[in-house]
Amino acid sequence: MSDSKTNNKNISKAVISRLPRYYRYLGELIEAETERISSKELSEKMNITASQIRQDLNNFGGFGQTGYGYNVKRLYAEIGVILGVDKEHNMLIIGSGNLGRALANYSNFQKRGFVVKGLFDKNPELIGKDVKGLVIQPMDNLKEFIKENDIEIAVLTIPKTEAVIIAKKLYDYGIRGIWNFAHTDLNLPKDIVVENVHLSESLMKLSYNLSSLKENED
Amino acid sequence: MSDSKTNNKNISKAVISRLPRYYRYLGELIEAETERISSKELSEKMNITASQIRQDLNNFGGFGQTGYGYNVKRLYAEIGVILGVDKEHNMLIIGSGNLGRALANYSNFQKRGFVVKGLFDKNPELIGKDVKGLVIQPMDNLKEFIKENDIEIAVLTIPKTEAVIIAKKLYDYGIRGIWNFAHTDLNLPKDIVVENVHLSESLMKLSYNLSSLKENED
Repeated sequence: MSDSKTNNKNISKAVISRLPRYYRYLGELIEAETERISSKELSEKMNITASQIRQDLNNFGGFGQTGYGYNVKRLYAEIGVILGVDKEHNMLIIGSGNLGRALANYSNFQKRGFVVKGLFDKNPELIGKDVKGLVIQPMDNLKEFIKENDIEIAVLTIPKTEAVIIAKKLYDYGIRGIWNFAHTDLNLPKDIVVENVHLSESLMKLSYNLSSLKENED
Repeated sequence: MSDSKTNNKNISKAVISRLPRYYRYLGELIEAETERISSKELSEKMNITASQIRQDLNNFGGFGQTGYGYNVKRLYAEIGVILGVDKEHNMLIIGSGNLGRALANYSNFQKRGFVVKGLFDKNPELIGKDVKGLVIQPMDNLKEFIKENDIEIAVLTIPKTEAVIIAKKLYDYGIRGIWNFAHTDLNLPKDIVVENVHLSESLMKLSYNLSSLKENED
Protein backbone atom coordinates (compact mmCIF):
# COMPACT_ATOMS: atom_id res chain seq x y z
CA MET A 1 0.00 0.00 0.00
CA SER A 2 2.77 2.43 0.88
CA ASP A 3 3.87 2.46 -2.77
CA SER A 4 0.89 4.51 -3.81
CA LYS A 5 2.13 7.36 -1.65
CA THR A 6 5.40 7.70 -3.51
CA ASN A 7 3.55 7.42 -6.81
CA ASN A 8 1.22 10.32 -6.06
CA LYS A 9 3.28 12.92 -7.82
CA ASN A 10 3.17 11.11 -11.13
CA ILE A 11 -0.61 11.13 -11.35
CA SER A 12 -2.07 13.96 -13.39
CA LYS A 13 -4.49 16.52 -11.91
CA ALA A 14 -7.20 15.43 -14.35
CA VAL A 15 -7.00 11.84 -13.10
CA ILE A 16 -7.03 13.01 -9.48
CA SER A 17 -10.17 15.06 -10.07
CA ARG A 18 -11.91 11.92 -11.36
CA LEU A 19 -10.82 9.70 -8.45
CA PRO A 20 -13.57 10.68 -5.97
CA ARG A 21 -16.16 9.61 -8.53
CA TYR A 22 -14.46 6.21 -9.05
CA TYR A 23 -14.31 5.90 -5.29
CA ARG A 24 -18.04 6.55 -5.03
CA TYR A 25 -18.96 3.97 -7.70
CA LEU A 26 -16.62 1.35 -6.22
CA GLY A 27 -18.17 1.99 -2.79
CA GLU A 28 -21.61 1.35 -4.27
CA LEU A 29 -20.35 -1.87 -5.88
CA ILE A 30 -19.05 -3.05 -2.50
CA GLU A 31 -22.46 -2.27 -0.95
CA ALA A 32 -24.01 -4.39 -3.72
CA GLU A 33 -21.49 -7.16 -2.88
CA THR A 34 -19.88 -7.06 -6.32
CA GLU A 35 -16.39 -8.55 -6.04
CA ARG A 36 -15.01 -7.75 -9.47
CA ILE A 37 -15.96 -5.66 -12.46
CA SER A 38 -14.64 -5.23 -15.99
CA SER A 39 -13.75 -1.82 -17.37
CA LYS A 40 -16.62 -2.30 -19.84
CA GLU A 41 -19.23 -2.83 -17.11
CA LEU A 42 -17.84 0.04 -15.06
CA SER A 43 -17.83 2.28 -18.14
CA GLU A 44 -21.54 1.62 -18.72
CA LYS A 45 -22.35 2.45 -15.12
CA MET A 46 -20.24 5.60 -15.03
CA ASN A 47 -21.02 6.81 -18.53
CA ILE A 48 -17.37 7.23 -19.57
CA THR A 49 -15.40 5.13 -22.06
CA ALA A 50 -13.77 1.86 -21.02
CA SER A 51 -10.46 3.03 -22.42
CA GLN A 52 -10.59 6.16 -20.23
CA ILE A 53 -11.17 3.93 -17.21
CA ARG A 54 -8.27 1.62 -18.13
CA GLN A 55 -5.96 4.58 -18.66
CA ASP A 56 -6.98 6.22 -15.38
CA LEU A 57 -6.75 3.08 -13.28
CA ASN A 58 -3.45 1.95 -14.84
CA ASN A 59 -1.91 4.75 -12.82
CA PHE A 60 -2.28 2.61 -9.72
CA GLY A 61 -0.57 -0.51 -11.00
CA GLY A 62 -1.83 -3.97 -11.88
CA PHE A 63 -5.32 -4.09 -10.48
CA GLY A 64 -7.04 -4.91 -13.75
CA GLN A 65 -6.50 -8.40 -15.17
CA THR A 66 -7.59 -9.52 -18.64
CA GLY A 67 -10.56 -11.84 -18.34
CA TYR A 68 -10.97 -11.03 -14.66
CA GLY A 69 -11.50 -7.29 -14.46
CA TYR A 70 -10.87 -5.21 -11.38
CA ASN A 71 -10.90 -6.45 -7.84
CA VAL A 72 -13.44 -3.96 -6.44
CA LYS A 73 -12.30 -4.01 -2.81
CA ARG A 74 -8.60 -3.70 -3.59
CA LEU A 75 -9.14 -0.87 -6.05
CA TYR A 76 -11.44 0.93 -3.58
CA ALA A 77 -8.83 0.62 -0.83
CA GLU A 78 -6.02 1.76 -3.08
CA ILE A 79 -7.92 4.85 -4.31
CA GLY A 80 -8.84 5.55 -0.67
CA VAL A 81 -5.13 5.65 0.22
CA ILE A 82 -4.37 8.02 -2.65
CA LEU A 83 -7.22 10.31 -1.59
CA GLY A 84 -6.07 10.18 2.02
CA VAL A 85 -9.39 8.83 3.27
CA ASP A 86 -7.72 5.79 4.83
CA LYS A 87 -6.82 8.06 7.76
CA GLU A 88 -8.93 10.14 10.12
CA HIS A 89 -9.01 13.89 9.62
CA ASN A 90 -10.20 16.05 12.48
CA MET A 91 -12.29 19.03 11.40
CA LEU A 92 -13.97 21.96 13.00
CA ILE A 93 -16.74 24.11 11.58
CA ILE A 94 -16.74 27.88 11.94
CA GLY A 95 -20.23 29.26 11.46
CA SER A 96 -23.03 27.29 13.10
CA GLY A 97 -25.94 28.56 11.02
CA ASN A 98 -28.03 26.23 8.86
CA LEU A 99 -25.18 25.31 6.52
CA GLY A 100 -22.68 24.66 9.32
CA ARG A 101 -25.22 22.52 11.14
CA ALA A 102 -26.10 20.67 7.94
CA LEU A 103 -22.43 19.76 7.46
CA ALA A 104 -22.07 18.75 11.13
CA ASN A 105 -25.04 16.43 10.72
CA TYR A 106 -23.83 14.82 7.51
CA SER A 107 -22.92 11.27 8.54
CA ASN A 108 -21.24 10.46 5.20
CA PHE A 109 -18.24 12.59 6.12
CA GLN A 110 -17.60 10.70 9.33
CA LYS A 111 -17.95 7.41 7.43
CA ARG A 112 -15.05 8.53 5.22
CA GLY A 113 -12.87 9.56 8.14
CA PHE A 114 -13.72 13.27 8.29
CA VAL A 115 -14.65 13.79 11.93
CA VAL A 116 -16.23 17.04 13.09
CA LYS A 117 -14.69 17.69 16.52
CA GLY A 118 -15.98 21.19 17.17
CA LEU A 119 -18.46 23.87 16.12
CA PHE A 120 -17.85 27.58 16.57
CA ASP A 121 -19.83 30.77 16.18
CA LYS A 122 -19.61 34.38 17.26
CA ASN A 123 -23.36 34.66 17.83
CA PRO A 124 -24.09 34.54 21.61
CA GLU A 125 -27.54 33.11 20.87
CA LEU A 126 -25.98 30.03 19.27
CA ILE A 127 -23.06 29.53 21.69
CA GLY A 128 -23.80 26.75 24.16
CA LYS A 129 -26.37 25.05 21.92
CA ASP A 130 -25.97 21.38 21.12
CA VAL A 131 -25.57 20.02 17.58
CA LYS A 132 -25.21 16.26 17.30
CA GLY A 133 -23.53 16.04 20.70
CA LEU A 134 -21.22 19.00 20.11
CA VAL A 135 -21.64 22.25 22.00
CA ILE A 136 -21.26 25.39 19.88
CA GLN A 137 -18.24 27.29 21.21
CA PRO A 138 -17.24 30.96 21.17
CA MET A 139 -14.49 32.08 18.80
CA ASP A 140 -12.15 32.79 21.71
CA ASN A 141 -11.70 29.05 22.23
CA LEU A 142 -10.47 28.50 18.68
CA LYS A 143 -6.69 28.62 19.09
CA GLU A 144 -6.54 26.30 22.07
CA PHE A 145 -9.11 23.90 20.63
CA ILE A 146 -7.11 23.46 17.43
CA LYS A 147 -3.97 22.64 19.39
CA GLU A 148 -5.61 20.28 21.86
CA ASN A 149 -7.69 18.35 19.33
CA ASP A 150 -5.17 17.94 16.54
CA ILE A 151 -7.46 19.71 14.05
CA GLU A 152 -6.38 19.43 10.43
CA ILE A 153 -9.26 20.95 8.48
CA ALA A 154 -11.37 24.05 9.18
CA VAL A 155 -14.73 24.47 7.44
CA LEU A 156 -15.81 28.06 6.88
CA THR A 157 -19.56 28.67 6.68
CA ILE A 158 -19.46 32.38 7.53
CA PRO A 159 -19.91 35.58 5.47
CA LYS A 160 -17.08 36.50 3.11
CA THR A 161 -15.57 39.48 4.97
CA GLU A 162 -15.29 37.45 8.18
CA ALA A 163 -13.94 34.44 6.29
CA VAL A 164 -10.94 36.38 4.98
CA ILE A 165 -9.97 37.48 8.50
CA ILE A 166 -10.60 34.14 10.21
CA ALA A 167 -8.69 32.25 7.50
CA LYS A 168 -5.54 34.24 8.24
CA LYS A 169 -5.91 33.45 11.95
CA LEU A 170 -6.43 29.76 11.19
CA TYR A 171 -3.21 29.76 9.21
CA ASP A 172 -1.38 31.29 12.18
CA TYR A 173 -2.91 28.66 14.47
CA GLY A 174 -1.39 25.93 12.29
CA ILE A 175 -4.36 24.87 10.14
CA ARG A 176 -3.24 23.70 6.67
CA GLY A 177 -6.59 22.74 5.12
CA ILE A 178 -9.64 24.98 4.65
CA TRP A 179 -12.96 23.93 3.18
CA ASN A 180 -14.33 27.32 2.19
CA PHE A 181 -18.05 27.94 1.63
CA ALA A 182 -17.70 31.73 1.86
CA HIS A 183 -18.21 33.44 -1.47
CA THR A 184 -14.69 34.81 -1.77
CA ASP A 185 -11.14 33.73 -2.52
CA LEU A 186 -9.01 33.59 0.61
CA ASN A 187 -5.55 34.49 -0.77
CA LEU A 188 -3.44 32.57 1.71
CA PRO A 189 0.21 31.41 1.61
CA LYS A 190 1.12 28.44 -0.60
CA ASP A 191 1.54 25.97 2.24
CA ILE A 192 -2.18 25.86 3.04
CA VAL A 193 -4.74 24.05 0.92
CA VAL A 194 -8.09 25.73 0.21
CA GLU A 195 -10.96 23.86 -1.41
CA ASN A 196 -13.74 26.25 -2.39
CA VAL A 197 -17.42 25.40 -2.62
CA HIS A 198 -18.87 28.46 -4.30
CA LEU A 199 -22.56 27.67 -4.42
CA SER A 200 -23.63 30.83 -6.29
CA GLU A 201 -21.16 30.01 -9.04
CA SER A 202 -22.47 26.48 -9.34
CA LEU A 203 -26.00 27.89 -9.68
CA MET A 204 -24.84 30.30 -12.40
CA LYS A 205 -23.32 27.43 -14.35
CA LEU A 206 -26.68 25.68 -14.12
CA SER A 207 -28.46 28.78 -15.37
CA TYR A 208 -25.98 29.15 -18.25
CA ASN A 209 -26.48 25.53 -19.29
CA LEU A 210 -30.23 25.99 -19.01
CA SER A 211 -30.13 28.96 -21.41
CA SER A 212 -27.96 26.99 -23.86
CA LEU A 213 -30.41 24.09 -23.71
CA LYS A 214 -33.30 26.42 -24.55
CA GLU A 215 -31.41 28.02 -27.42
CA ASN A 216 -30.71 24.64 -28.96
CA GLU A 217 -34.40 23.84 -28.81
CA ASP A 218 -35.40 27.06 -30.57
CA MET B 1 -27.23 43.00 -25.66
CA SER B 2 -29.12 40.44 -27.72
CA ASP B 3 -25.94 39.71 -29.67
CA SER B 4 -24.40 37.90 -26.76
CA LYS B 5 -27.13 35.31 -26.98
CA THR B 6 -26.31 34.30 -30.50
CA ASN B 7 -22.60 34.30 -29.66
CA ASN B 8 -22.96 31.87 -26.77
CA LYS B 9 -22.18 28.81 -28.79
CA ASN B 10 -18.80 30.11 -29.88
CA ILE B 11 -17.52 30.49 -26.33
CA SER B 12 -15.48 27.56 -25.06
CA LYS B 13 -16.49 25.55 -22.00
CA ALA B 14 -13.29 26.57 -20.22
CA VAL B 15 -14.15 30.25 -20.60
CA ILE B 16 -17.71 29.63 -19.42
CA SER B 17 -16.48 27.88 -16.29
CA ARG B 18 -14.42 30.97 -15.44
CA LEU B 19 -17.28 33.45 -16.03
CA PRO B 20 -18.95 33.18 -12.60
CA ARG B 21 -15.64 34.14 -10.98
CA TYR B 22 -15.29 37.20 -13.24
CA TYR B 23 -18.87 38.04 -12.43
CA ARG B 24 -18.12 37.88 -8.69
CA TYR B 25 -15.05 40.11 -8.93
CA LEU B 26 -16.84 42.63 -11.13
CA GLY B 27 -19.74 42.71 -8.65
CA GLU B 28 -17.27 43.49 -5.86
CA LEU B 29 -15.76 46.28 -7.97
CA ILE B 30 -19.23 47.77 -8.48
CA GLU B 31 -19.81 47.63 -4.71
CA ALA B 32 -16.51 49.48 -4.28
CA GLU B 33 -17.74 52.03 -6.86
CA THR B 34 -14.93 51.27 -9.30
CA GLU B 35 -16.00 52.40 -12.77
CA ARG B 36 -13.20 50.95 -14.88
CA ILE B 37 -10.33 48.55 -14.47
CA SER B 38 -7.36 47.50 -16.61
CA SER B 39 -6.67 43.86 -17.33
CA LYS B 40 -3.45 44.27 -15.32
CA GLU B 41 -5.26 45.48 -12.20
CA LEU B 42 -7.92 42.80 -12.56
CA SER B 43 -5.24 40.15 -13.06
CA GLU B 44 -3.56 41.13 -9.78
CA LYS B 45 -6.86 40.92 -7.93
CA MET B 46 -7.86 37.60 -9.45
CA ASN B 47 -4.45 36.00 -9.46
CA ILE B 48 -4.55 35.03 -13.15
CA THR B 49 -2.51 36.51 -16.00
CA ALA B 50 -3.61 39.71 -17.74
CA SER B 51 -3.33 37.96 -21.11
CA GLN B 52 -5.72 35.23 -19.94
CA ILE B 53 -8.19 37.92 -18.90
CA ARG B 54 -7.90 39.72 -22.23
CA GLN B 55 -8.36 36.47 -24.14
CA ASP B 56 -11.37 35.45 -22.05
CA LEU B 57 -13.10 38.81 -22.18
CA ASN B 58 -12.43 39.35 -25.88
CA ASN B 59 -15.10 36.71 -26.42
CA PHE B 60 -17.72 39.30 -25.54
CA GLY B 61 -16.69 41.99 -27.97
CA GLY B 62 -15.06 45.36 -27.52
CA PHE B 63 -15.40 46.10 -23.84
CA GLY B 64 -11.72 46.65 -23.20
CA GLN B 65 -10.14 49.82 -24.61
CA THR B 66 -6.42 50.55 -24.68
CA GLY B 67 -5.60 53.20 -22.10
CA TYR B 68 -9.07 52.98 -20.61
CA GLY B 69 -9.49 49.39 -19.49
CA TYR B 70 -12.83 47.71 -18.96
CA ASN B 71 -16.08 49.45 -18.18
CA VAL B 72 -16.96 47.49 -15.04
CA LYS B 73 -20.74 47.93 -15.14
CA ARG B 74 -21.07 47.10 -18.84
CA LEU B 75 -18.88 44.01 -18.55
CA TYR B 76 -20.77 42.88 -15.45
CA ALA B 77 -24.11 43.29 -17.23
CA GLU B 78 -22.87 41.50 -20.35
CA ILE B 79 -21.51 38.51 -18.41
CA GLY B 80 -24.79 38.46 -16.47
CA VAL B 81 -26.71 38.06 -19.74
CA ILE B 82 -24.44 35.22 -20.87
CA LEU B 83 -24.89 33.46 -17.54
CA GLY B 84 -28.64 33.97 -17.70
CA VAL B 85 -28.76 35.87 -14.38
CA ASP B 86 -30.36 38.91 -16.00
CA LYS B 87 -33.65 37.01 -15.75
CA GLU B 88 -35.52 35.56 -12.79
CA HIS B 89 -35.45 31.81 -12.29
CA ASN B 90 -38.05 30.23 -10.07
CA MET B 91 -36.77 27.38 -7.94
CA LEU B 92 -38.11 24.90 -5.46
CA ILE B 93 -36.22 22.90 -2.89
CA ILE B 94 -36.98 19.26 -2.23
CA GLY B 95 -35.68 18.21 1.16
CA SER B 96 -36.24 20.70 3.98
CA GLY B 97 -33.56 19.48 6.38
CA ASN B 98 -30.64 21.67 7.43
CA LEU B 99 -29.13 21.91 3.96
CA GLY B 100 -32.43 22.69 2.24
CA ARG B 101 -33.21 25.35 4.83
CA ALA B 102 -29.70 26.79 4.54
CA LEU B 103 -30.20 27.19 0.79
CA ALA B 104 -33.68 28.70 1.27
CA ASN B 105 -32.19 31.26 3.65
CA TYR B 106 -29.31 32.24 1.39
CA SER B 107 -30.15 35.78 0.28
CA ASN B 108 -27.36 35.89 -2.32
CA PHE B 109 -29.33 33.61 -4.63
CA GLN B 110 -32.38 35.87 -4.65
CA LYS B 111 -30.11 38.86 -5.33
CA ARG B 112 -28.93 37.09 -8.50
CA GLY B 113 -32.46 36.27 -9.64
CA PHE B 114 -32.77 32.74 -8.26
CA VAL B 115 -36.02 32.87 -6.32
CA VAL B 116 -37.03 30.03 -4.02
CA LYS B 117 -40.80 29.71 -4.48
CA GLY B 118 -41.43 26.51 -2.54
CA LEU B 119 -40.01 24.01 -0.07
CA PHE B 120 -41.02 20.35 0.02
CA ASP B 121 -40.46 17.38 2.27
CA LYS B 122 -41.96 13.96 2.89
CA ASN B 123 -41.45 14.20 6.65
CA PRO B 124 -44.82 14.95 8.36
CA GLU B 125 -42.96 16.64 11.22
CA LEU B 126 -41.55 19.26 8.84
CA ILE B 127 -44.63 19.77 6.65
CA GLY B 128 -46.47 22.97 7.59
CA LYS B 129 -43.43 24.59 9.19
CA ASP B 130 -42.38 28.03 8.06
CA VAL B 131 -38.97 28.78 6.51
CA LYS B 132 -38.40 32.41 5.55
CA GLY B 133 -42.08 32.93 4.83
CA LEU B 134 -42.49 29.69 2.90
CA VAL B 135 -44.54 26.82 4.29
CA ILE B 136 -42.98 23.36 3.83
CA GLN B 137 -45.30 21.37 1.59
CA PRO B 138 -45.96 17.66 1.15
CA MET B 139 -44.60 15.89 -1.93
CA ASP B 140 -48.14 15.36 -3.26
CA ASN B 141 -48.34 19.08 -4.09
CA LEU B 142 -45.24 18.94 -6.31
CA LYS B 143 -46.75 18.48 -9.77
CA GLU B 144 -49.37 21.18 -9.45
CA PHE B 145 -46.99 23.60 -7.76
CA ILE B 146 -44.45 23.35 -10.59
CA LYS B 147 -47.13 24.09 -13.16
CA GLU B 148 -48.76 26.96 -11.29
CA ASN B 149 -45.53 28.71 -10.28
CA ASP B 150 -43.57 28.41 -13.48
CA ILE B 151 -40.74 26.55 -11.72
CA GLU B 152 -37.58 26.18 -13.77
CA ILE B 153 -35.05 24.72 -11.31
CA ALA B 154 -35.45 22.02 -8.66
CA VAL B 155 -32.90 21.72 -5.88
CA LEU B 156 -32.43 18.23 -4.45
CA THR B 157 -31.26 18.01 -0.86
CA ILE B 158 -32.49 14.49 -0.18
CA PRO B 159 -30.78 11.08 0.16
CA LYS B 160 -29.43 9.52 -3.02
CA THR B 161 -31.96 6.71 -3.51
CA GLU B 162 -34.87 9.13 -3.23
CA ALA B 163 -33.12 11.66 -5.46
CA VAL B 164 -32.95 9.23 -8.38
CA ILE B 165 -36.71 8.55 -8.19
CA ILE B 166 -37.77 12.17 -7.63
CA ALA B 167 -35.53 13.42 -10.45
CA LYS B 168 -37.37 11.22 -12.95
CA LYS B 169 -40.71 12.58 -11.71
CA LEU B 170 -39.42 16.15 -11.96
CA TYR B 171 -38.47 15.50 -15.57
CA ASP B 172 -41.97 14.24 -16.28
CA TYR B 173 -43.42 17.32 -14.60
CA GLY B 174 -41.49 19.53 -17.03
CA ILE B 175 -38.47 20.58 -14.94
CA ARG B 176 -35.36 21.07 -17.11
CA GLY B 177 -32.81 22.17 -14.49
CA ILE B 178 -31.75 20.24 -11.39
CA TRP B 179 -29.26 21.41 -8.79
CA ASN B 180 -28.32 18.11 -7.24
CA PHE B 181 -26.79 17.82 -3.77
CA ALA B 182 -27.52 14.10 -3.48
CA HIS B 183 -24.40 11.97 -3.63
CA THR B 184 -25.29 10.18 -6.85
CA ASP B 185 -25.46 10.73 -10.60
CA LEU B 186 -29.03 11.10 -11.81
CA ASN B 187 -28.81 9.64 -15.33
CA LEU B 188 -31.56 11.65 -16.97
CA PRO B 189 -32.39 12.38 -20.63
CA LYS B 190 -30.22 14.86 -22.53
CA ASP B 191 -32.76 17.67 -22.51
CA ILE B 192 -32.45 18.30 -18.79
CA VAL B 193 -29.49 20.05 -17.19
CA VAL B 194 -28.05 18.67 -13.95
CA GLU B 195 -25.47 20.59 -11.93
CA ASN B 196 -24.02 18.41 -9.19
CA VAL B 197 -22.64 19.62 -5.87
CA HIS B 198 -20.96 16.52 -4.51
CA LEU B 199 -19.71 17.69 -1.12
CA SER B 200 -17.98 14.44 -0.16
CA GLU B 201 -15.98 14.55 -3.37
CA SER B 202 -14.93 18.12 -2.73
CA LEU B 203 -13.77 17.08 0.75
CA MET B 204 -11.76 14.18 -0.72
CA LYS B 205 -10.03 16.54 -3.12
CA LEU B 206 -9.10 18.67 -0.11
CA SER B 207 -7.73 15.64 1.70
CA TYR B 208 -5.75 14.56 -1.38
CA ASN B 209 -4.19 18.02 -1.71
CA LEU B 210 -3.45 18.03 2.00
CA SER B 211 -1.52 14.74 1.70
CA SER B 212 0.39 16.08 -1.32
CA LEU B 213 1.28 19.21 0.62
CA LYS B 214 2.67 17.15 3.49
CA GLU B 215 4.70 14.93 1.15
CA ASN B 216 6.30 17.96 -0.44
CA GLU B 217 7.29 19.19 3.00
CA ASP B 218 8.91 15.87 3.95
